[in-house]
Amino acid sequence: MSEENVKYLLPESDIPTHWVNLLPDLPGDPIPPLHPGTLQPAGPDDLAPLFPMALILQEVSPEPEIEIPEPVREVYKLWRPSPLFRARRLERELDTPAHIYYKYEGVSPAGSHKPNTAVAQAYENAQAGIKRLATETGAGQWGSALAFACSLFGLECEVFMVGSSYDQKPYRRSMMETWGATVHRSPSELTDSGRANEEHPTGSLGIAISEAVEVAASRDDTNYSLGSVLNHVCLHQTVIGQEAIAQMAMAGEQPDVVIGCVGGGSNFAGLTFPFIRDVLRSGAKTRFLAAEPAACPTLTRGVYRYDFGDTAGLTPLMPMYTLGHDFVPPPVHAGGLRYHGDAPMLCGLVRGGVVEARAYGQNETFEAAVRFARSEGIIPGPEPAHAIRAVLEEADAAKQAGEERVILLGLSGHGHFDLAAYDAFLAGRLEDPEFSAEDMEAALGRLPEAPAIA
Amino acid sequence: MSEENVKYLLPESDIPTHWVNLLPDLPGDPIPPLHPGTLQPAGPDDLAPLFPMALILQEVSPEPEIEIPEPVREVYKLWRPSPLFRARRLERELDTPAHIYYKYEGVSPAGSHKPNTAVAQAYENAQAGIKRLATETGAGQWGSALAFACSLFGLECEVFMVGSSYDQKPYRRSMMETWGATVHRSPSELTDSGRANEEHPTGSLGIAISEAVEVAASRDDTNYSLGSVLNHVCLHQTVIGQEAIAQMAMAGEQPDVVIGCVGGGSNFAGLTFPFIRDVLRSGAKTRFLAAEPAACPTLTRGVYRYDFGDTAGLTPLMPMYTLGHDFVPPPVHAGGLRYHGDAPMLCGLVRGGVVEARAYGQNETFEAAVRFARSEGIIPGPEPAHAIRAVLEEADAAKQAGEERVILLGLSGHGHFDLAAYDAFLAGRLEDPEFSAEDMEAALGRLPEAPAIA
Repeated sequence: MSEENVKYLLPESDIPTHWVNLLPDLPGDPIPPLHPGTLQPAGPDDLAPLFPMALILQEVSPEPEIEIPEPVREVYKLWRPSPLFRARRLERELDTPAHIYYKYEGVSPAGSHKPNTAVAQAYENAQAGIKRLATETGAGQWGSALAFACSLFGLECEVFMVGSSYDQKPYRRSMMETWGATVHRSPSELTDSGRANEEHPTGSLGIAISEAVEVAASRDDTNYSLGSVLNHVCLHQTVIGQEAIAQMAMAGEQPDVVIGCVGGGSNFAGLTFPFIRDVLRSGAKTRFLAAEPAACPTLTRGVYRYDFGDTAGLTPLMPMYTLGHDFVPPPVHAGGLRYHGDAPMLCGLVRGGVVEARAYGQNETFEAAVRFARSEGIIPGPEPAHAIRAVLEEADAAKQAGEERVILLGLSGHGHFDLAAYDAFLAGRLEDPEFSAEDMEAALGRLPEAPAIA
Repeated sequence: MSEENVKYLLPESDIPTHWVNLLPDLPGDPIPPLHPGTLQPAGPDDLAPLFPMALILQEVSPEPEIEIPEPVREVYKLWRPSPLFRARRLERELDTPAHIYYKYEGVSPAGSHKPNTAVAQAYENAQAGIKRLATETGAGQWGSALAFACSLFGLECEVFMVGSSYDQKPYRRSMMETWGATVHRSPSELTDSGRANEEHPTGSLGIAISEAVEVAASRDDTNYSLGSVLNHVCLHQTVIGQEAIAQMAMAGEQPDVVIGCVGGGSNFAGLTFPFIRDVLRSGAKTRFLAAEPAACPTLTRGVYRYDFGDTAGLTPLMPMYTLGHDFVPPPVHAGGLRYHGDAPMLCGLVRGGVVEARAYGQNETFEAAVRFARSEGIIPGPEPAHAIRAVLEEADAAKQAGEERVILLGLSGHGHFDLAAYDAFLAGRLEDPEFSAEDMEAALGRLPEAPAIA
């Protein structure tokens, strides 16, 4: 046993030099976003009021790889390459022949994968002479990451935090303030979008996005920053999967199935897109499994349509699985997964059958998380706990089949700010909200007028 | 800049195989602990009701190195070797010629250095057939570490948590419970020691120790576990310093000064003892600097005397700097530093002039911590924030002298459960309690009858 590796570490020199852009490898022509007013394909100029041109060019780039600016790689060195673990203790606990690996992004200062893109976005905005970034945050992971990144590049940071998370996680707010950010509870009184949603006191990501976009659009020195969904955000996260490929090679194995949680999709994209590129090019048989909450089951129950990214309808229309842009999910503790849509690139892969999706209830998710904590030590965030639930299913399937399958899990962050949720679970006080047929009918009725997608 | 290393990582195979026992290298004869009843030197048998014999033998061992059991090294692989960072961003922020390095123990599942000994203690107790460990915790770091370690070796864990920390940090309690531990607020109604201290509702480490010792002494299947002070605890922490020596060699530098915070002393011992052994053997000029809170200034204001380790006087008398065994420090946020005494080995080194000590107020400490967080990203625990304060002073001294001095900081843990304290600091609501002449006079009056120390 003493000679068995538990983790696989890469040196700083192996931090990727490029991000992987999956766009040119996807089959068929890209489906463009539409301008919310004209319903015509939205071009770079339509995004210029919100984003610096360097990020807009990344958003639409046809290049298969995009170089990572050296100052961004320098910041990545604070925590990257992140470790890949072999979950030997969990395997023994499950008595499974499966080999379970997990790529752990909780080692970043903000505690999740989010700084991978926050640092890139803060850098490009600072280069463009922008003074302030406005954003939303659900669980607080994204707001923390952007606050951290802004502190390193001398930018101000203004965060609209979804009301239910603001109340559940006061210390996420303190964390953002420690890094120098300003935090508002959303819906707030500061914006039209906030004032229009007073009847939703728990808030939603969609509302908070509208508030941040409104602030950014109204000030010349302020840009907007999004923590998921968009192509350039998925792009920045691909450092995860590239490192994981190198680390799995160190371990001498190839994953049979790669599993991650999905809120807006950037964590899942970051882990899987480099693997998916290899699969698309080689025809390999790797499976990809996206885990989402039953209370907000975008990929498993949503419809594939053009919809807005935010509640107020300020963003371009994007082709995606959606529960309707003004759907307000129940306040489950996986705040980072409470989003009505998903990254268009990921939705295309689900539609094309490359990625499977499953939805899990809140209690079964926390049960999996506690099991993981008591064997592997790390207390997972509620978001990746959904992926852990899927890992337990896959490990059991391997046991039933008597096969030594290789499972790779994306453990996107720790749960240090989610212990009130663990407390509720351990006390039997956790609810299991479901998405109902009535919810679905209402969602369909709220979809905007837009062209059908071929 | 792109070729500069930010961190220095060792492979799992470089986790130390032995702990460093400084005892045989210390000048003069060891000063024995005394039995609390007879005042005669306490032997291994006196400790047998509380500890397994394997740990007692480590406590009194004359061997310079003690082999680490393989199952303990296996668990260490979950986070060890821990990273050594070069604080290049902090150096630029301070505009200092000093080279600042920090050894970061916050990567452990419990978030501090404490699991280094918790795992070793849980393992030896499980080997000895013990079913349950009882312990105290101040900031919650130690209780979390022992809860984590017990979950890996199938032991029950019962934690008495100092009242002020229990109130300030509810999520530390949830963390321990997630790993399966039972947590009591101290002083509790469950023990004589707890009931006798109802007039101290904020509690103290001394009271909580008495409660845990009482529980362990009264049950055959239960042992006591201490997170600091004792020789075997300092011993287990020396994996930190051994790794740091190897990592500083990778960086091609030797520290001119090594800085850590001191509560009971195990963190400081773990980082410095391997370096101190080299200094004692070679006569090198390295300085060692211990940072403690002005509200509980054991090393800088205490008297060097025999005193009890706990409030009720249940433990052996130990030779140490003490503020009196029933001193109840003000409820500062560095809960892990609220202890009336310090590790006897460390106290001997302070008395012998090998280690310097300095005390810092709460606000200047948090000011240093925020400065660190905004440059290096990591939000430090309030305990190591004291050491960061000392680093800022040393970096400034290097600047004044125009010298390229090498500073090594022990960053013993993160502050993810201390953000209420950061919140209070940022809002200007943090108090700065001082230790007064009246406190000192009262402490001297409470010291037990015991032989003078030569």
